Amino acid sequence: MDSEVLAQLTEILEEDQISTNDTILEHHSKDESYHAAHLPEVVLFPRSSEEVSRILALADRTKTPVTPFGLGSGLEGHVVPSSGGISIDFSEMTQIIEVREDDLVVRVQPGVTRSMLDNALKKYGLFFPVDPGADATIGGMTATNASGTTSLKYGVMKDQIRSLEVVTPQGEIIKTGSLALKSSSGYNLTDLYTGSEGTLGCITEITLSLYGVPENITAARATFPSINDAVDAVTSIVQAGVPAARMELVDEASIRQVNRLVETAYEENPTLFLEFHGNEAGLKQDVQFTKEILFDNHCTDVIFEKDNQARMKLWEGRHNLAYAYVHDYPGRSLMVTDVCVPISSLAEAIIFGREQLEENNLPGGIVGHVGDGNYHAFIMIDKTDEKEMQKADDFNQAIVEHALSRGGTCTGEHGVGIGKKKYLEAEHGAALGVMKTIKKALDPNNIMNPGKFIDIE
Amino acid sequence: MDSEVLAQLTEILEEDQISTNDTILEHHSKDESYHAAHLPEVVLFPRSSEEVSRILALADRTKTPVTPFGLGSGLEGHVVPSSGGISIDFSEMTQIIEVREDDLVVRVQPGVTRSMLDNALKKYGLFFPVDPGADATIGGMTATNASGTTSLKYGVMKDQIRSLEVVTPQGEIIKTGSLALKSSSGYNLTDLYTGSEGTLGCITEITLSLYGVPENITAARATFPSINDAVDAVTSIVQAGVPAARMELVDEASIRQVNRLVETAYEENPTLFLEFHGNEAGLKQDVQFTKEILFDNHCTDVIFEKDNQARMKLWEGRHNLAYAYVHDYPGRSLMVTDVCVPISSLAEAIIFGREQLEENNLPGGIVGHVGDGNYHAFIMIDKTDEKEMQKADDFNQAIVEHALSRGGTCTGEHGVGIGKKKYLEAEHGAALGVMKTIKKALDPNNIMNPGKFIDIE
Ligand SMILES: Cc1cc2nc3c(=O)[nH]c(=O)nc-3n(C[C@H](O)[C@H](O)[C@H](O)COP(=O)(O)OP(=O)(O)OC[C@H]3O[C@@H](n4cnc5c(N)ncnc54)[C@H](O)[C@@H]3O)c2cc1C
Ligand SMILES: Cc1cc2nc3c(=O)[nH]c(=O)nc-3n(C[C@H](O)[C@H](O)[C@H](O)COP(=O)(O)OP(=O)(O)OC[C@H]3O[C@@H](n4cnc5c(N)ncnc54)[C@H](O)[C@@H]3O)c2cc1C
Repeated sequence: MDSEVLAQLTEILEEDQISTNDTILEHHSKDESYHAAHLPEVVLFPRSSEEVSRILALADRTKTPVTPFGLGSGLEGHVVPSSGGISIDFSEMTQIIEVREDDLVVRVQPGVTRSMLDNALKKYGLFFPVDPGADATIGGMTATNASGTTSLKYGVMKDQIRSLEVVTPQGEIIKTGSLALKSSSGYNLTDLYTGSEGTLGCITEITLSLYGVPENITAARATFPSINDAVDAVTSIVQAGVPAARMELVDEASIRQVNRLVETAYEENPTLFLEFHGNEAGLKQDVQFTKEILFDNHCTDVIFEKDNQARMKLWEGRHNLAYAYVHDYPGRSLMVTDVCVPISSLAEAIIFGREQLEENNLPGGIVGHVGDGNYHAFIMIDKTDEKEMQKADDFNQAIVEHALSRGGTCTGEHGVGIGKKKYLEAEHGAALGVMKTIKKALDPNNIMNPGKFIDIE
Repeated sequence: MDSEVLAQLTEILEEDQISTNDTILEHHSKDESYHAAHLPEVVLFPRSSEEVSRILALADRTKTPVTPFGLGSGLEGHVVPSSGGISIDFSEMTQIIEVREDDLVVRVQPGVTRSMLDNALKKYGLFFPVDPGADATIGGMTATNASGTTSLKYGVMKDQIRSLEVVTPQGEIIKTGSLALKSSSGYNLTDLYTGSEGTLGCITEITLSLYGVPENITAARATFPSINDAVDAVTSIVQAGVPAARMELVDEASIRQVNRLVETAYEENPTLFLEFHGNEAGLKQDVQFTKEILFDNHCTDVIFEKDNQARMKLWEGRHNLAYAYVHDYPGRSLMVTDVCVPISSLAEAIIFGREQLEENNLPGGIVGHVGDGNYHAFIMIDKTDEKEMQKADDFNQAIVEHALSRGGTCTGEHGVGIGKKKYLEAEHGAALGVMKTIKKALDPNNIMNPGKFIDIE
């Protein structure tokens, strides 16, 4: 990146929006994952779509790589500026532009985080359901098609997005979708940009669906003698069509972490955390039916929580599990796997994962959004130990291959970034060629997040 | 299309799969809409994806236009082969390839119709929820991102599709998506092909989500003194978060048609047809709450139907309304408008539509999937009367402009085809340029359904 580009940037942004400070560069060189860092040459903090537009137009003209940066909570190295260049940080674009209560939608800038949005919505009695384990930005969550514990009932990011404002690699500001609940008008660009991981442009505004806070919520914690029984219970609940809002598996090792983290004394056995949302009468019937299914699947103990405080505590443990692992293994790095399989293959997939984890003697545990068929192995790796790194990588590969052979996907929610790039050929075959054609057509100079999920020749 | 191409087609298909018979050509020259017909030069009936692949490769090599044809029930002239060439009819590809009960999915060929699928699923206690008014093919429904009365609860076509097999314009067979419930792996090609109206390739296989037949279903018919009150009731129900499965508006003129068609004696006033799915206790509470909202909005009479036969009769009337109009106005053609607006603008939009209809003295009525913010005006036009055609067209334009000014869309479910092409610039602005770039990249010879929603220079 030549000094000419830097000079031109000062014509677009104020001085305090441009940083080459070492600490700032370093902060934008990596995410929460084990992937190797790489420094950007400059970090920019735009405050408007117009500024983003002018930055991209300049980058395109000068063929300067651009990597969008939300919060850096990604788990596959997506924000690592592998080719240097510009890192665009959206933390100065945090406006909640408009809450349309009557339409149950909100329009936000990309730097708004999940907790900012939660706080802003409280007074309306509305909530936004997608809750990844990190306090990620809405821009980052859109760019990775994130999901969370309640996606079982409410859907993933792509199901919430009515409309996007996107700045194309050429600096054009476009609007996709509409405020309507559905549309058959033209190609679905909204869903193309959602999950594109900053490789097709910058997302500068997101219009999201909201939901009324449910009238009644009941959470539950159910303990099982084996992980197999727990997963069988999940499969039965899904197949019976009980509209559970959350169904999370936490294995023994992970329950130990929860106990340590939130100072609970949960029985250290494979556990399901569940939640139900609905009207009072309907919920009661759902809970009763679920109880029967749980016990049919050898559940040894189930505790229901209607009290809000107790419920919060339960989910706090689940939500902060990754951080609990990280604190328990100082000096080690977190590797999180993320396969998602058809529900009929879930039990088998998790058993396979457990076996592989134990066989390879890798420290960690298994948790997952199991109602969706999505599970994670949290592995605490020593990045300086080449042999262990290889073992962890082999493990990841083995469970990905297993998942693909069952018709699943290599990433249910974290995205491709650097880590999953090598599996795309096996997963998508000839369709990967179509993805490359689209990338080449929309970003011919390959400035947007180059080196991530797609390599164009 | 030169005779050379025809000769080469005989190397790909059997004789009985190639037709230049006048009746067949004529059948493939139009859909159910008022749009002008245009003959294809040949109609092909492939029996496998491989045959489709060889047809497209040949068409691409010879730059021959190709228009996919499902059932021809479209309402915007999508299947009219405006540039002649080949019409590919999928009626020989009607296999239900696999029902995966445990995963709640089904894999079908594109020519399977909605009713074929319904029948096949009965024995599993499962159902597929998207039910457009015509017995359309799953291929056509996918290609238009169709929806129906139950989309309020279950979502539109794109929400049901896990995976597609697509033959690209170059004849390559690709697979998009996976069997997993969610994925963040690569660009979302599934949603790009869904709703692409045959302009990006042929869909040769579709994997759809299924649902357990609901434990309890209650339908309702509610009468209102004015259309305004009916729509206000809908808006209140949506905003209160009652999980209704269906909410359909039928105006006075259309209720008259229903009465004639299914020999009922419904009060000829603006009416809502509703339905609720759920467990027994929850449904009871939903129904009770809905009743209160209906009466708060001046409902004069509401009748609930739990009996299956009675329920079927109620929906039969709603479903066959378009045909009722067609039979009631012999010699005239059906024009159906299709705007969809944010729910807060629905009342206003429908009142505007009604006024415009009356002012222009156009025969017809208003119905709609109002829970989604989507309504249709059924207008019975005399295609030979230029002045009336102009009036109908002006009417369509007026309500589209009204919808767009409220953040809505020109087509909620029918798609663009020929009829909505002229509105795309106003709706999408610069994003239309991105759509064109994609079309050019994926179909550089512009063989796939040319002349429809996108013109590439
Ligand atoms: C403890 C922990 C738990 C997690 N749990 C979950 C979980 O349950 N579910 C889940 O889905 N993920 C989870 N994640 C992963 C991560 O939180 C998500 O991927 C999240 O969506 C990333 O958001 P971010 O704001 O940190 O984005 P970043 O990591 O900064 O960026 C992610 C990607 O999005 C791109 N991007 C960011 N902003 C924009 C923009 N405005 N325009 C275009 N591209 C942009 C970046 O270039 C990058 O490719 C977890 C991570 C951690 C550390
Ligand atoms: C009475 C009536 C009521 C209706 N009600 C509704 C409704 O409630 N909701 C709704 O959404 N629609 C409705 N429609 C419109 C129509 O039924 C839908 O658009 C339907 O999805 C079209 O299906 P089809 O099989 O007839 O497709 P066609 O009309 O044959 O084709 C539609 C489009 O899909 C393309 N196509 C078809 N098959 C394939 C394939 N295999 N690969 C690629 N492209 C393909 C065609 O080229 C064309 O562009 C109604 C129509 C009528 C006549």
